Amino acid sequence: MVRKISVQTRGQALHEITSDLAEVVADAGVEEGLCTVMIQHTSASLTIQENADPSARCDLENWLNRLVAENDPLYTHTAEGPDDMPSHIKAALTSTTLSIPIASGRLGLGRWQGVYVWEHRRRGSRRSLLVHIGQ
Amino acid sequence: MVRKISVQTRGQALHEITSDLAEVVADAGVEEGLCTVMIQHTSASLTIQENADPSARCDLENWLNRLVAENDPLYTHTAEGPDDMPSHIKAALTSTTLSIPIASGRLGLGRWQGVYVWEHRRRGSRRSLLVHIGQ
Amino acid sequence: MVRKISVQTRGQALHEITSDLAEVVADAGVEEGLCTVMIQHTSASLTIQENADPSARCDLENWLNRLVAENDPLYTHTAEGPDDMPSHIKAALTSTTLSIPIASGRLGLGRWQGVYVWEHRRRGSRRSLLVHIGQ
Repeated sequence: MVRKISVQTRGQALHEITSDLAEVVADAGVEEGLCTVMIQHTSASLTIQENADPSARCDLENWLNRLVAENDPLYTHTAEGPDDMPSHIKAALTSTTLSIPIASGRLGLGRWQGVYVWEHRRRGSRRSLLVHIGQ
Repeated sequence: MVRKISVQTRGQALHEITSDLAEVVADAGVEEGLCTVMIQHTSASLTIQENADPSARCDLENWLNRLVAENDPLYTHTAEGPDDMPSHIKAALTSTTLSIPIASGRLGLGRWQGVYVWEHRRRGSRRSLLVHIGQ
Repeated sequence: MVRKISVQTRGQALHEITSDLAEVVADAGVEEGLCTVMIQHTSASLTIQENADPSARCDLENWLNRLVAENDPLYTHTAEGPDDMPSHIKAALTSTTLSIPIASGRLGLGRWQGVYVWEHRRRGSRRSLLVHIGQ
């Protein structure tokens, strides 16, 4: 089963999609299986991160923004704006696809884990994801 | 089939789990399939790396420790110790889930590949992983 | 179904394999499913990146080469040449496995996404990949 979901981001940040995935898993009615999610973009990505203290996600964002700076003289791919090339690099350093086992009919995440769409562009947009449920 | 396994780490290092996964694959008795492993934590991660010369894993560890330093003035998430925020960043830069094809009843790893839990905290702990075997 | 494919790389660069994967997917004749690809090496990796403007891939390559320099005095794993240890680090920071949902019988990539083998060694070589198709 493959389902398409979309997420409206509001600029650079981690946007939680755990409950969206949980809903697809519940609909599938699979007791044991695998939930795979892929983001159909190269300037946003996916990550599994701590869902408790928001300061961890904030530091993560700031750290990556410092590592992958805008307006780096190295960039030649600049036609789509100063935040575009950094976005591609950030996507390459994080994840485009994630596969999460399903156990007892639920996503097998750890207690402190959430699944996030990581928007790397300054302006938010509607991001498309495909979710596959297998057995 | 989903199986839970756990690994006792002994501080920052790569802890090989190839044989643990191979055992789950052998138990499943699948000729061709897919083995997916997910770590249920956000301060440790997974990687597939060279299993031959230990110096490669040692350099990898040291390089990442230099890139993602402790006590960075940027961090605000400091309540869980100086090695906690670096651990989350390292987890985001490496992998939380890995999927390995099964061929001829065995994990389809290359000759020099091993699967590792990468502990990012200074103190080791018991880490939980879910392993899914699909066809 | 597991199929082995191989790619001849020509030195450090992103080598597109989207059509190779599409062929395996078409052969499998699966309407909805999951295509997982794994590279059987630790000095080359996989990434999903923009397939439109080649300057994005060029900048990505140059950025990563600057981040993970050759001849870093930190390295002790130097017996296989100055580009070997950087290759392992780059592989750890990118992806060894990728899972792409199949929808309507085709790889569910976004419009601007291509799948690439990322060769990290200076000299190209024949790289082996396993492709699993599941339902």
